[in-house]
Amino acid sequence: MISKFVKVLGVVIVMVSCGENETTSTSNVFNEPLASFNDGTAKENIMAFVSMVTDEGTEGYVEKENRIVVFDNDGTLWVEQPLPSQLYFAAAHLKQLASAGDYDWEAEMPYKAIVSDDQEAMKSFTKEDVIKIVGKAHASADVNTFGNLVNAWLDTATHPVLGRKYTDLVYKPMLELLEYLREHDFQIYIVSGGSMEFMRAWAPDVYGINKANIIGSTFKTKVDQNEDSIGLEQTEEFEFNDDHSGKVVSINKFIGQKPIMVVGNSDGDLEMMEYATTDVGYPTLMVYLNHTDAVREFEYNEKTLTGTLVQGKKVAEKNGWTIIDMKKDWTEVFVNK
Amino acid sequence: MISKFVKVLGVVIVMVSCGENETTSTSNVFNEPLASFNDGTAKENIMAFVSMVTDEGTEGYVEKENRIVVFDNDGTLWVEQPLPSQLYFAAAHLKQLASAGDYDWEAEMPYKAIVSDDQEAMKSFTKEDVIKIVGKAHASADVNTFGNLVNAWLDTATHPVLGRKYTDLVYKPMLELLEYLREHDFQIYIVSGGSMEFMRAWAPDVYGINKANIIGSTFKTKVDQNEDSIGLEQTEEFEFNDDHSGKVVSINKFIGQKPIMVVGNSDGDLEMMEYATTDVGYPTLMVYLNHTDAVREFEYNEKTLTGTLVQGKKVAEKNGWTIIDMKKDWTEVFVNK
Repeated sequence: MISKFVKVLGVVIVMVSCGENETTSTSNVFNEPLASFNDGTAKENIMAFVSMVTDEGTEGYVEKENRIVVFDNDGTLWVEQPLPSQLYFAAAHLKQLASAGDYDWEAEMPYKAIVSDDQEAMKSFTKEDVIKIVGKAHASADVNTFGNLVNAWLDTATHPVLGRKYTDLVYKPMLELLEYLREHDFQIYIVSGGSMEFMRAWAPDVYGINKANIIGSTFKTKVDQNEDSIGLEQTEEFEFNDDHSGKVVSINKFIGQKPIMVVGNSDGDLEMMEYATTDVGYPTLMVYLNHTDAVREFEYNEKTLTGTLVQGKKVAEKNGWTIIDMKKDWTEVFVNK
Repeated sequence: MISKFVKVLGVVIVMVSCGENETTSTSNVFNEPLASFNDGTAKENIMAFVSMVTDEGTEGYVEKENRIVVFDNDGTLWVEQPLPSQLYFAAAHLKQLASAGDYDWEAEMPYKAIVSDDQEAMKSFTKEDVIKIVGKAHASADVNTFGNLVNAWLDTATHPVLGRKYTDLVYKPMLELLEYLREHDFQIYIVSGGSMEFMRAWAPDVYGINKANIIGSTFKTKVDQNEDSIGLEQTEEFEFNDDHSGKVVSINKFIGQKPIMVVGNSDGDLEMMEYATTDVGYPTLMVYLNHTDAVREFEYNEKTLTGTLVQGKKVAEKNGWTIIDMKKDWTEVFVNK
């Protein structure tokens, strides 16, 4: 980003300093912004907002250091149906462990249901069961080992319905939105219900976002102290649920200030949107992605385990927030066809 | 930083693009680096390290995104004797509250000792007592209110021994070190035992470090949800102790990767230094500031409540880490005389 910025600026400076009079447009350096968005309210709202907060001449101008945008991940930046991808990783990893060794937990529920592919038992999984499974798959002697396992899985695993690699199921228009915001000096954060360690394994490469800017639910880590050396173990013990009001707590803790823009897709993103718009004296843009495309992706809102968007949609409509209708607003859905 | 960087680069580009042949040095744009350091091992080690990790031609080159440096705060970037400044704020704030209203806690220890200036009782304070006092001073209806209170106090309060404003007691050579590292594209983080909210109130302005990069001990926050609006309350309940091995946990959680350089001043910084140097395949620089200057500041190591440096010094000497001797290595100590 900096190199691109400097490159553009360099050109401008040269033009000015050498005394040439022609006005130089830098827009041709970049591709068309939001190219996979159809013209319509969603695209217009986003571009008008970015234009306003970056134009020093307007009342709505926001300094670079305050141009903070928060994205949810599952269902906002990549696919989350029929289940969030992290659950497929957890299931695959626990099965692999069970086939390679003997563990006490293999015979216990909810792990037993996963290891034995007991679909009937899985249907009655509680939220606690899901956390236990995700946690068990996290446990590793070193935090880096866990990241390597996730990436090894992503290299070969395919989505159970769409049949493509999970990283191919990142939304192309959202990558364009990330790039567009980056070009306008927004600081981009992910604040997701998914686990921080799971996302940090692959999301920096896929989204171009630093690990430090990727915030999620956490499982406890444990310091292993030896003489003159210290390691960090990843445990399976659940620590923090980064969803609903947990996202508000995380924004304060990890970012330290309110974002001016939030992009999400479910009721779990509503609290951080309300927090971001409560008692602020600057422009804000709240954006919901509505999954309306049963042909290219999935159509879901009310009829889903994760990604429910009911209360959030009501508030968004009442407040005039921006709603992206996937079916109508996107010319393409995924980054790789 | 970016504007300075761009300015320098702009000059270079202009010179080249306009076809002038003279070589342009950009070094005159900056002041002499580390100007308040005397020549000696400490300054040499720091400059040799920065030179190595930023020179693409060396084996020790480290990409910008991995040039992460972590600083402790109390006793590393500003004064911490006879007690960390945050305690003076807490005492002043609790006294002010007690004089202005009626609270149940006024009659309870340890708060009673503070409100009634009971020096004898304060001498037997436990660590838990100190946390209770700091916590009680944190409690406020809104996280921003707390920051405003801290800044109002800093505007007028003076240090009990040195008689100057606390922000005047920031170490000048350390500000120069921050600037020097910033110029070399290091990402700077604070990882401190002091409270995150206390530091985030003033440290962004004083050190030029974003709130998101300021990590410390935390007291819980509480989400206050009303219809269509959400606030975040700062409670007095202790959440996380960001000291000793807690700093290792924080580095993983907030930064997501090991720093290549750590600067601290006490045994509480030893674990993060050992973590940063365990099993890594790139150069690292561990720096301890040793408080040896009884005339200009304080001489302490073993004989102190906070800022003890005993085990850390042993490990530093054994491993050949860099030790800044305040008395010998610094021509000036504080940013404002």
